[in-house]
Amino acid sequence: MTLQHKPHHAAPAACSAELIAIGSELILGHVAERNGAFLARELTRLGVAVQFTTTVGDDEQAMAETLERAIGRSQIVITTGGLGATEDDLTKKVLARVTRRRLILNDELRIRIRARYKQRGGSVPASVDRQALVLSRAHLIENALGTAPGIQVSGPHYWLAALPGVPHEMEAMFHAVVSGLLQARFGLRPRSRLRVLHCGGVGELLVNERLRPLFSERPGSIGVIAKPAGADVLLLAGPPKIDPSLRHRPTAIPADYDALQALEREVRGRLGDAVFGADDDSLASVVGRLLRERELTLAVAESCTGGLVTHLLTNVPGSTAYVDRGIICYSNRSKSDLAGVAPQLVEEYGAVSAQVAWALADGIRRASGCSIGLAVTGIAGPTGGSAKKPVGLVHLAVSDQGTVTTKFHHFHGDRLALKQAFAHAALDLLRRHLLKAGI
Amino acid sequence: MTLQHKPHHAAPAACSAELIAIGSELILGHVAERNGAFLARELTRLGVAVQFTTTVGDDEQAMAETLERAIGRSQIVITTGGLGATEDDLTKKVLARVTRRRLILNDELRIRIRARYKQRGGSVPASVDRQALVLSRAHLIENALGTAPGIQVSGPHYWLAALPGVPHEMEAMFHAVVSGLLQARFGLRPRSRLRVLHCGGVGELLVNERLRPLFSERPGSIGVIAKPAGADVLLLAGPPKIDPSLRHRPTAIPADYDALQALEREVRGRLGDAVFGADDDSLASVVGRLLRERELTLAVAESCTGGLVTHLLTNVPGSTAYVDRGIICYSNRSKSDLAGVAPQLVEEYGAVSAQVAWALADGIRRASGCSIGLAVTGIAGPTGGSAKKPVGLVHLAVSDQGTVTTKFHHFHGDRLALKQAFAHAALDLLRRHLLKAGI
Repeated sequence: MTLQHKPHHAAPAACSAELIAIGSELILGHVAERNGAFLARELTRLGVAVQFTTTVGDDEQAMAETLERAIGRSQIVITTGGLGATEDDLTKKVLARVTRRRLILNDELRIRIRARYKQRGGSVPASVDRQALVLSRAHLIENALGTAPGIQVSGPHYWLAALPGVPHEMEAMFHAVVSGLLQARFGLRPRSRLRVLHCGGVGELLVNERLRPLFSERPGSIGVIAKPAGADVLLLAGPPKIDPSLRHRPTAIPADYDALQALEREVRGRLGDAVFGADDDSLASVVGRLLRERELTLAVAESCTGGLVTHLLTNVPGSTAYVDRGIICYSNRSKSDLAGVAPQLVEEYGAVSAQVAWALADGIRRASGCSIGLAVTGIAGPTGGSAKKPVGLVHLAVSDQGTVTTKFHHFHGDRLALKQAFAHAALDLLRRHLLKAGI
Repeated sequence: MTLQHKPHHAAPAACSAELIAIGSELILGHVAERNGAFLARELTRLGVAVQFTTTVGDDEQAMAETLERAIGRSQIVITTGGLGATEDDLTKKVLARVTRRRLILNDELRIRIRARYKQRGGSVPASVDRQALVLSRAHLIENALGTAPGIQVSGPHYWLAALPGVPHEMEAMFHAVVSGLLQARFGLRPRSRLRVLHCGGVGELLVNERLRPLFSERPGSIGVIAKPAGADVLLLAGPPKIDPSLRHRPTAIPADYDALQALEREVRGRLGDAVFGADDDSLASVVGRLLRERELTLAVAESCTGGLVTHLLTNVPGSTAYVDRGIICYSNRSKSDLAGVAPQLVEEYGAVSAQVAWALADGIRRASGCSIGLAVTGIAGPTGGSAKKPVGLVHLAVSDQGTVTTKFHHFHGDRLALKQAFAHAALDLLRRHLLKAGI
């Protein structure tokens, strides 16, 4: 997918940012770098345009080269990682070098960090005082969840924050401090220039087909991303501009949010009830809201998805209010034990069939006394497929008192991708059933 | 975590690589960039040292700047993305510019791509011929799973491959073509300079404590990463060196694999049976192998993990041989319905207690007729905790015929992190039980 806002005129300059992730475990491919995606999302929500993200190992030369370039070309630079107590943690040393600052031992901080280590019951490493070194003319960013504080320094043309690499510490510090500093410094407002509409039960190809006329009318403002058993539509407004006449107190000129809203209405009109939510919504959170509003309870019977449907549903805080139970009936005997599926049904139609999905959904609903039963049975592979019932086939069913609705799909992908597609298709079937059932 | 191999002498130069991911959806933070981690892992497996990974949007200037720098400083450059048929896909245009090559329409390729679109049943986009443009003096890399082929070009000091951004296409092309090309060109052998040992049932702090003497003996060769209810130990050999006397036919001098093996023996000696596997092993695959070897069957009763334990177990192909069923008993009634847990037990000790874990594991084993029952009951939060039973508390139990083993933990983190920690702790308890039980 490619999506880039094409500016209509050159000046004023876009408010641009650059992210740098530091850590050799990232460069080895063992740990996927995820801080960049978090920061890019949050900066986009502030209207800022991220232009580069770079990952480097704990290598002084590579770090210096990358930092030097970043503060030379980007207004906002955020680094993650390399602030720990070990010798390999070089961020402050390199930052001091490229921003021409000294490193000074901060006594108050040293005492605070030592106390934090002791409070956690661990021994205090000999190298802990490294963490109390701070750059001259820098602001400290408090780290409420860890020992290494962040650092904020500014130059004539850059604003830089160095944050720790531990995701939950970094994320908390961004929300508590960094976001506010950026808003104050650049006159930004927390209003995203990206709007994401989530679609369920339709493939990327169909979404592309329905939106085709918009691609040429609004080049670079709209993109489509494939998701398990669905797709996301990305709508983008141009980044806010920095007014160059206010050089020492830059103020962002807001992005065109009216055009963004008009585009969203147009897209929703073309996609109808395939759109199940926006931005932070998930299929599980939307289904959960519908169940809760209707005061319904749910029991799930899964086979091939092996617990994933109920795992997704119970990722939502408070799901205990509507998720009563789930059963994962991998063996045929478990289907009859737990959901009362007659063994003859499995013999006659096979475990992966509309009939068995029907019996599972209705059986689990009756056995549990819940309002609704949801069932999934399919072939996730890599083996177990046949010409008539290939890998990727899934049968779904929803039982709601008097009625049972069944549906089947044939998806492509490996075992893990198929489990995801099956589970999301099941949740979407339930969503559509609940919408049709009305309040 | 920081981990970087410190070379003992300067020359010959390490075989260095740089990765560039292209796509505006990546720079918006909506889609996490994952191709870089795959390529870094695969290059590390070939002994190559990745030094930089950069992500840029579909922006001609930013791409040119990044590519120009990469071919100037790295021996191996691999780009992903920007090879599609739309106007935003700029990789070939920019590559032609920075490598001083022309773009030529390849007629054979044009016919092949048009046929591929028709075969898929879709309409042929007007812009499809863009995909048939190739750089002069370049090799095509066939894309068996998609329409956009890859491109390989070389200069006096660089070797560059441009691959599509769709992960499964890119990964297949790397394995089928790119890996072999790199091995031939640089005399590399598929032998990883990274060895990962996975530990279960011990925290990052304890692993660090046990390995502390090794950190100073072997600086930069060993690192520890926290994992849910466990930790990974990363062992690293130096990258193979390029013999500078063979400039036009560089040949890698292998990394020191003997030292790597000696280090692994030392680490395993210090960590004992906390180490459950290496590299591609997962707790679920290791537990699966133990169950299969012993011809045992498993039934799982989960509460707070909501299906995650069984989801992890059934991610392993062939798990149908030993996973019989799972139950997710969120409500108290479901605990008695599905596992025969006496309601008085829940009333007296609470749903999150060793007694209820005991009853769940034993109850599901008896009800299912399986060899082993595994149970998890805990508080994933954010609400539902108390002073006596805080969020993060989990009780686990394994029932194996005559004996039931219980264990509890208190973890920290948000709801999703706690579900992961609980599930991995449960699988580790089962692993340790199976090891103790012998074959």
